[in-house]
Amino acid sequence: MSKKQKNNKLRPKTKKHYIKRNQKKYKMQQLQLGIGQKMINSVIIGLNEDDKSHVLKIIEGLDEYDIAHLIEALDIKHRRKLIDFMGKHINPDVLPELNDTVQEQVIDSLDEEQIVDIVNELDSEEAVEILEHLDDDEQEHIISKLEPELKHQVEASLSYPEDSAGRIMSREFVSMPDDWTVKEARKFLFENNELPEEFYTIFLTDSKMHPTGQIALDKLLRAKADVLLKNIMDYEIIPINVCTDQEEVAHMFREYGWMSGIVVDDKNRLIGVINIDDVVDIVHEEANEDMLHLSGVGEGDIYKSVVGIFKSRIGWLIINLFAVFMASSVVKEFEPIIAQASVLAVLMPIVASMSGTTGQQTLAVVVRALATKELTSRNTFRMIGKEFCVGLMNGILFAALIAFVTHLIFPDQHLISLIIAIAMLINLCIASLAGILIPLTMSKLHFDPAAASGVFLIAMTDSGGFFIFLGLAKLIMF
Amino acid sequence: MSKKQKNNKLRPKTKKHYIKRNQKKYKMQQLQLGIGQKMINSVIIGLNEDDKSHVLKIIEGLDEYDIAHLIEALDIKHRRKLIDFMGKHINPDVLPELNDTVQEQVIDSLDEEQIVDIVNELDSEEAVEILEHLDDDEQEHIISKLEPELKHQVEASLSYPEDSAGRIMSREFVSMPDDWTVKEARKFLFENNELPEEFYTIFLTDSKMHPTGQIALDKLLRAKADVLLKNIMDYEIIPINVCTDQEEVAHMFREYGWMSGIVVDDKNRLIGVINIDDVVDIVHEEANEDMLHLSGVGEGDIYKSVVGIFKSRIGWLIINLFAVFMASSVVKEFEPIIAQASVLAVLMPIVASMSGTTGQQTLAVVVRALATKELTSRNTFRMIGKEFCVGLMNGILFAALIAFVTHLIFPDQHLISLIIAIAMLINLCIASLAGILIPLTMSKLHFDPAAASGVFLIAMTDSGGFFIFLGLAKLIMF
Repeated sequence: MSKKQKNNKLRPKTKKHYIKRNQKKYKMQQLQLGIGQKMINSVIIGLNEDDKSHVLKIIEGLDEYDIAHLIEALDIKHRRKLIDFMGKHINPDVLPELNDTVQEQVIDSLDEEQIVDIVNELDSEEAVEILEHLDDDEQEHIISKLEPELKHQVEASLSYPEDSAGRIMSREFVSMPDDWTVKEARKFLFENNELPEEFYTIFLTDSKMHPTGQIALDKLLRAKADVLLKNIMDYEIIPINVCTDQEEVAHMFREYGWMSGIVVDDKNRLIGVINIDDVVDIVHEEANEDMLHLSGVGEGDIYKSVVGIFKSRIGWLIINLFAVFMASSVVKEFEPIIAQASVLAVLMPIVASMSGTTGQQTLAVVVRALATKELTSRNTFRMIGKEFCVGLMNGILFAALIAFVTHLIFPDQHLISLIIAIAMLINLCIASLAGILIPLTMSKLHFDPAAASGVFLIAMTDSGGFFIFLGLAKLIMF
Repeated sequence: MSKKQKNNKLRPKTKKHYIKRNQKKYKMQQLQLGIGQKMINSVIIGLNEDDKSHVLKIIEGLDEYDIAHLIEALDIKHRRKLIDFMGKHINPDVLPELNDTVQEQVIDSLDEEQIVDIVNELDSEEAVEILEHLDDDEQEHIISKLEPELKHQVEASLSYPEDSAGRIMSREFVSMPDDWTVKEARKFLFENNELPEEFYTIFLTDSKMHPTGQIALDKLLRAKADVLLKNIMDYEIIPINVCTDQEEVAHMFREYGWMSGIVVDDKNRLIGVINIDDVVDIVHEEANEDMLHLSGVGEGDIYKSVVGIFKSRIGWLIINLFAVFMASSVVKEFEPIIAQASVLAVLMPIVASMSGTTGQQTLAVVVRALATKELTSRNTFRMIGKEFCVGLMNGILFAALIAFVTHLIFPDQHLISLIIAIAMLINLCIASLAGILIPLTMSKLHFDPAAASGVFLIAMTDSGGFFIFLGLAKLIMF
């Protein structure tokens, strides 16, 4: 009924050492988790002096969390050397604790045999997490050398789409038939030595493994012995299909306040469980992604080498260069009138910058609301209307402000105040609409709205800002 | 030993209805959680027609989650009317389920007596969450009218700093002396009717209520009856001080893979417990905040009225206006040379835009790394060095690119290619440094780096970009 137990499978609940600290009342404290700077420095000295035994001696006393911290705290050169020093002695449980980027670096500096040895010691979710990052060839190679049961589980996981419930679910859970009594259940738990290391809920199924309910352990502890499980179970369950995207899974957990979720296959058979601690990581990861993508960067930059960072950011900058060339070519069209009235060059950045900022505000709200599913088909139209109204109000306010200030600076040029005011009004309305319509379109076309929207927005607000301002100037002044 | 039990205190594990759906294999599905558009439309019609009994009849069958969804899905006008219709009949459990912004709106449209009635039905964490948002006067008024036990708990919570462990912890947990046997523990759990509705861990203390360990329920179920709890407990615990900031709490949960954390007062006495489902909300909230602040917007915009959104965004736009005026006044200084060479106006936006984008990339990475505590005193200097190098590499690449393109567009102006290349190189280096030094400084000065950094960065890259480009042009060309 339950899956095989493994060592070190679930994270221990607490850390190996007790951190003592003096805390002042009513003051936020900065707790330095894990290892200290002294130890890191000592390791660095050892690495620089090629003193392998000294380094290994320091590491000997550390648990997997501390070693992971140490590896992350080093720069790339020292990181590689440390892995090299550890060689066969590396604790397999360190790998799943590493930041994704660092994990890839570490795996890159291990040979195939070492990877197989490490992965064989992990549970299936952890193994999948590591294998996901390898090339297809290498992945296949390593999987073929895994122990049969793990191999089977890993292959099953990898058959589901990336970032789906099937990839993150645990295959180790406790389930029993719903027609057992509390006494039978207790006996099963007491006598069975192959249970997962930690579990909070027991899942109940009918004879076809269709989930019918669940029981939290506290209920089981407090129920009378002769009661049937089906009479005390929570039967209002919502199974998660194995192909559901992890962002959707996280949303369901938040929505329903779950501690664990039931994963079923297309025939509604219970095949896995997702626990809330995995969901914390997903929420964290997805929010990180959105925020960084919105600014045109990838994850893990702080662990990369200079060349690695450079590569990860260059794409966005080149796209931005195209956008700004576009804006620039708009200005070029109006070069003759700028030559006649250089005041236009002075004021020209204002409209573009203000509408860029307005659009960015809307964009951030919309991207976030799309990710949290607060923006749905129900309220899209209302939201578009609202954003347009906000753009209009901003437009009116800043048109008045800018006309006033322009008049103060260039008191003898009446027309220019009028021109910049009209340009501001029009462009802020456009920017607000663009800020919502661009990510909505991206989302409809199944692109990541966080990653792709910004550059379109900038291209639009810059070029649009220059075109409307200079175009109006040409129309009115010349 | 355990705290009083209340109705509906903890969220139920599952939703009241089972959502049936056809799911296609290997296809991400969009699950429409909660109520449908039809029901919302029916409520809106009822509200428009002032048909109170019709509206209340629809709501009658809904649970607190569905009603919360319904309230969130309405626009402000209808939202107020619905609250008005529900009046005394509003289900108290709806309030904690609402988005913060909507919650405030609902509370604003209730009278004091109604708020007291609702809060009295909630548990202390939920009550605190609602009372936090009120003015001091109103808060005091309402607290004075609460039931004695809740009043005491709420006052205790509110005595801790906002966003601290003391505000989010639950005072309802199961604890027992560590010298009890498993049998005594089981008996206590079986006979005690005042336990929390759900719990996963039992906390153990010595005679002075100092935490000494914890036991997961699965261990208790599977242990032999005559064993002492202290012999099977997990004694490696890290207590959270009651004043620890919630961001730090979330970090500890992620770091140690906790399901629950032990909160102690300054005398190291166990006073509360934080559960992982509250941490999911914190992670979500903090990531949201950072992302929105970075773009100069607050939370909850999609639930606000047009005027509300306008107000929440105007501050940032006015600050941005100052920044762009600064940049504009730089250009004004160089107006005479632009009048002589209008090509400068055409190329001028390129340097500013590219360095703005470069700086934004660095800023996003740094703000996120500060929030996740990946950027610490250990690696700050290394990171600054890396960012400068990346800026330099980008500077060299884009200097070459821009010189080439400028030469293509303006083949007869040799000097201008040189000028824009040098300006690009210098400004991208400055932008990269600004992108890391500004948020680091903000953080050192205890400002929110996400909220305040962007505008300084833009002021710097815009003004700097124009100044260096036009200044070089003046120096070299004239």
